[in-house]
Amino acid sequence: MADVLIPRLAIIGVGLIGGSLSLALKEAGAVGEVVGCGRGKPNLEKALELGVVDRYSRDPLDAVKDADVIFLATPVKTLATVTEELLPACKPGAIITDGGSVKGAVSAAIDPLMPDNVYFVPGHPIAGTEKSGAEAAFPTLYRGKRCILTPTENTNADALALVEKMWQIAGSEVVKMSLEKHDRVLAAISHLPHMVAYSLVNAVGSYDHYEENILEYSAGGFRDFTRIASSDPTMWRDIAETNRDGLLEMMEQFEKFFAELKTDIAEGSGEKLFEFFLRSKQLRDAIL
Amino acid sequence: MADVLIPRLAIIGVGLIGGSLSLALKEAGAVGEVVGCGRGKPNLEKALELGVVDRYSRDPLDAVKDADVIFLATPVKTLATVTEELLPACKPGAIITDGGSVKGAVSAAIDPLMPDNVYFVPGHPIAGTEKSGAEAAFPTLYRGKRCILTPTENTNADALALVEKMWQIAGSEVVKMSLEKHDRVLAAISHLPHMVAYSLVNAVGSYDHYEENILEYSAGGFRDFTRIASSDPTMWRDIAETNRDGLLEMMEQFEKFFAELKTDIAEGSGEKLFEFFLRSKQLRDAIL
Repeated sequence: MADVLIPRLAIIGVGLIGGSLSLALKEAGAVGEVVGCGRGKPNLEKALELGVVDRYSRDPLDAVKDADVIFLATPVKTLATVTEELLPACKPGAIITDGGSVKGAVSAAIDPLMPDNVYFVPGHPIAGTEKSGAEAAFPTLYRGKRCILTPTENTNADALALVEKMWQIAGSEVVKMSLEKHDRVLAAISHLPHMVAYSLVNAVGSYDHYEENILEYSAGGFRDFTRIASSDPTMWRDIAETNRDGLLEMMEQFEKFFAELKTDIAEGSGEKLFEFFLRSKQLRDAIL
Repeated sequence: MADVLIPRLAIIGVGLIGGSLSLALKEAGAVGEVVGCGRGKPNLEKALELGVVDRYSRDPLDAVKDADVIFLATPVKTLATVTEELLPACKPGAIITDGGSVKGAVSAAIDPLMPDNVYFVPGHPIAGTEKSGAEAAFPTLYRGKRCILTPTENTNADALALVEKMWQIAGSEVVKMSLEKHDRVLAAISHLPHMVAYSLVNAVGSYDHYEENILEYSAGGFRDFTRIASSDPTMWRDIAETNRDGLLEMMEQFEKFFAELKTDIAEGSGEKLFEFFLRSKQLRDAIL
């Protein structure tokens, strides 16, 4: 086991995110034993059966014992509580890292808990699918995707280097940025679009000037556009609560542009409307 | 030719919409001769080669001569001008109908032009794909889709019945409603989502607190969500100009819900956030 990057890896929350990391590292020969931990026994049994983990324990203190790296893949609001629970069993030199989609609030809650000889590296792989659970995990989920790490002045340099290496082996391009920038970037490209989609569906679904629900008239385009409004309400409540400032800033940025467009429409400014739509098309086409 | 519904059909604008109607009616044996008319000769040649039309003329007066039904599938702002141009060559009893995505402004412009013995039936098939041109046309485009007809007090009942029959033969479910309701429904399920997507891309693309374009971080979800922001700026300028009132009403409806959500986030009202997201998910899931 001397050559593997991570002799023992503990995955807390063996779903799409945690399970796929395990499979990618196993495929690359970069881990020794992978121990899974979670609340649902059927999911853990499934993970074992599919080879996503080598063994599992429902006791977090048992699962992290002797682990070199502990990957937290539980909901964002549970990360600090889970960390607090695990810490007594962590060996000296252990590295805890996470995949939470909000970083400022998570670091603020976890940093004060950390002892001197266990290290926390905040991270966020930008990858996912609609599916969840150990069964949804696959080894190439992270291939060609970005993984953002948000080290602070408290972050141990060796621990950071190991986590960076881990994600590179999983196939990701690792980008480092500040907690604040991460939360603004994610607010813009993920959290704001969800708020917009949720608002759009509520606005159209609540329009009651006619005796029928006008959502019934929606065709494929509307349904595709609002797909993300079917996302898990609990998860998005947690994100909206924990990335409050980043999200509010982006929502105001959106409102500014939406108001500008409304003015152009009210004034019938054909030229300004064309420019607004063209600028958007050019920005959109550039990221294709 | 005595048994066919439409002995001679003229299609003005032989693209996805006009061409697919022709193919559907041909497949059903419901048309005699189909004459195409448009500005681009290569597209008309292609339409002829693919059997989308039986012949074509680049002269609108020639194309509509002896036509029983004339289907207008040109951009929404051109419909009244095209009608004015065609009318002198229409035979008594001819029916003009259209596929424009805004109905109030179109009817207001065309109704005053109509002589007593030529009939106008405003319509809008709710179907489409990303593609355009005669090559994109296919006979099943309208199958299982809704087609909205918006007769007014000026609409001839026999002409309306024939156009209704035509769309049913093409596979559509025909729904009749007022011009105003059509424009509100379309504002809600199509025009508003486009305005939201255009504003979102401009808002995120213009955020300049960091030295790089944060759109670069967008992953598949953002790209899917903003696909419609790549739509044709000219077409959407025309829609925003011609459905001004319906669109402004829906934009205000959206703003109301977006502002409510912003307040819930600012106040950290977890319960209200959960309810907002859950209501949206339920509305969205109900139209799947």
